[in-house]
Amino acid sequence: MLCGLGDDAAVVKLDSPILVTTDVLVEGVHFHRWWGTPRQLGQKAFAVNASDIAAMGGCPVYALIDLRAPSMFPVRDLEGMYRGFRGAAARHGVILIGGNTSRAPELSLAVTLLGRASNGFITRGGCRVGDDLYVTGTLGLAALGMLELRAGRKAGAAVRRFLVPPSRVGIGQALGRTGLVGGMLDVSDGFLKDLGHLCTASRVGAVVEAGSLPLAAVYRRTRGRDLSLALTGGEDYELLFSARPAFSRRVARLISRFRCPLSRVGRIVAEHHGIRVVAPDGHVLPIAVGGHDHFSVRRHRAGTRRPRRIHNIRALR
Amino acid sequence: MLCGLGDDAAVVKLDSPILVTTDVLVEGVHFHRWWGTPRQLGQKAFAVNASDIAAMGGCPVYALIDLRAPSMFPVRDLEGMYRGFRGAAARHGVILIGGNTSRAPELSLAVTLLGRASNGFITRGGCRVGDDLYVTGTLGLAALGMLELRAGRKAGAAVRRFLVPPSRVGIGQALGRTGLVGGMLDVSDGFLKDLGHLCTASRVGAVVEAGSLPLAAVYRRTRGRDLSLALTGGEDYELLFSARPAFSRRVARLISRFRCPLSRVGRIVAEHHGIRVVAPDGHVLPIAVGGHDHFSVRRHRAGTRRPRRIHNIRALR
Repeated sequence: MLCGLGDDAAVVKLDSPILVTTDVLVEGVHFHRWWGTPRQLGQKAFAVNASDIAAMGGCPVYALIDLRAPSMFPVRDLEGMYRGFRGAAARHGVILIGGNTSRAPELSLAVTLLGRASNGFITRGGCRVGDDLYVTGTLGLAALGMLELRAGRKAGAAVRRFLVPPSRVGIGQALGRTGLVGGMLDVSDGFLKDLGHLCTASRVGAVVEAGSLPLAAVYRRTRGRDLSLALTGGEDYELLFSARPAFSRRVARLISRFRCPLSRVGRIVAEHHGIRVVAPDGHVLPIAVGGHDHFSVRRHRAGTRRPRRIHNIRALR
Repeated sequence: MLCGLGDDAAVVKLDSPILVTTDVLVEGVHFHRWWGTPRQLGQKAFAVNASDIAAMGGCPVYALIDLRAPSMFPVRDLEGMYRGFRGAAARHGVILIGGNTSRAPELSLAVTLLGRASNGFITRGGCRVGDDLYVTGTLGLAALGMLELRAGRKAGAAVRRFLVPPSRVGIGQALGRTGLVGGMLDVSDGFLKDLGHLCTASRVGAVVEAGSLPLAAVYRRTRGRDLSLALTGGEDYELLFSARPAFSRRVARLISRFRCPLSRVGRIVAEHHGIRVVAPDGHVLPIAVGGHDHFSVRRHRAGTRRPRRIHNIRALR
């Protein structure tokens, strides 16, 4: 950083191509403040943005934070959020270069991250027919945690996962370096919806093997064979990507270094097949009949609504 | 732009050093929605950020916008804000590379700008004793406009100035290129307060000639000889900078190309003199007795409160 906090703008050095992402957590829309600690909220604000940089195969370098709070909000909690954010940023070597604090009726944290992708970047549009489809970690755990929080529970692996998402930054970077990956994104809106985004951008379809979906032990215990949270729950912040079958051993070896589960959950097929979820006995689960743009569920309660990314901004002209 | 709206992060090319700034307008804190049109609000959200890039002698290149609105907010007005923002951005050659829309109890627009400073950048810390002190445009007009809006007036030059700040991007860039300038910032918190920031960063003092302060005709008509709005009003978004006396003709010639008034309003003196405002008859106005960190006025009503820049974030660790 050449010139940082305290001037009109920060001045930084960063080699092109530069990755830029921004995401926001708004109280009452994405969280309730009594669900977790201020520190966890700060950590999450960093994690959801770092996840977007990871999904491009990049490395976050600089951060800006826009923090708004009601005038009566306790300073101690504000400090807790900063500490959570700064701690998470520091663990990733990310430097805070600016931001604002502002009074507002409700608490919110908006983060902008700048990252580097020195060895190339991975878009959503690179999946090819015949690729294997992989996902890191497990699916549906955060959504389960949110249901538990709504039911008044405040502990357990699922709740922890909802409050502080995993970091797949190391994995994302490693995948970006090696060139093994076709297309990639992070699972934030829900597995099927994000798979839809991946397939739309790559102009392909996908077959998902329901039996291969990675579920945490607590998920299996609580939900039995119900896959709905794993398929549509959202907030997993795992990496979903495709790779040529010839790369399968190299991909597995690479990810194994990170002590993170990796599951092959299906394969990329031609676009006209759409997206299908197939049970172990071979029958197609009815959830997929609508095609990959029809999995979206209207979600209005706090914790279930992700900020809408501006894809259609051109339509607003 | 290598990869834009629609992927996890935007991917852009931008030569270092890179300028980064972010600023926010929150309804009820920085504006009321009935004060102006949605389009003006979008224009202002761009302008206040572009002003920060201009104050570094840079050129804005890429923008992100975080737009939040209540669920019942009219789509037409949302589109109006976008159009205002996009129009202002387009006039400066700035490309929108990402952002979010989100539901929130109150309307707000937060903008992040990335800029370039290919020919060097200007900080607040470069003023030297003996420099002349310059300000572009006029002072106090926006503050007057805000008072008129509060009193129910919705037209006139002052109101327009408050609703849509001037763009000094061209001037800022030109000053950045030529190396004529010592230290520079934009006047957003109020002339004296920002002069305080400039002097603190440069470790100098300043003598301001009250008779030289640039006042718009409507300001003189309305306020007579009352300089308080010009000195402390805020939201002027003019450039305040210092330059060696030997450069005075070159500075004047440079700015004259932009059809923008330029006033020499004082000079830089040694730090221990603090900041003084001197009347034409030579007596020191009492407003300056507190020194340059004591001009801040507690301001709580909408339109008077600028987002607090995080200068003291280290203190929060």
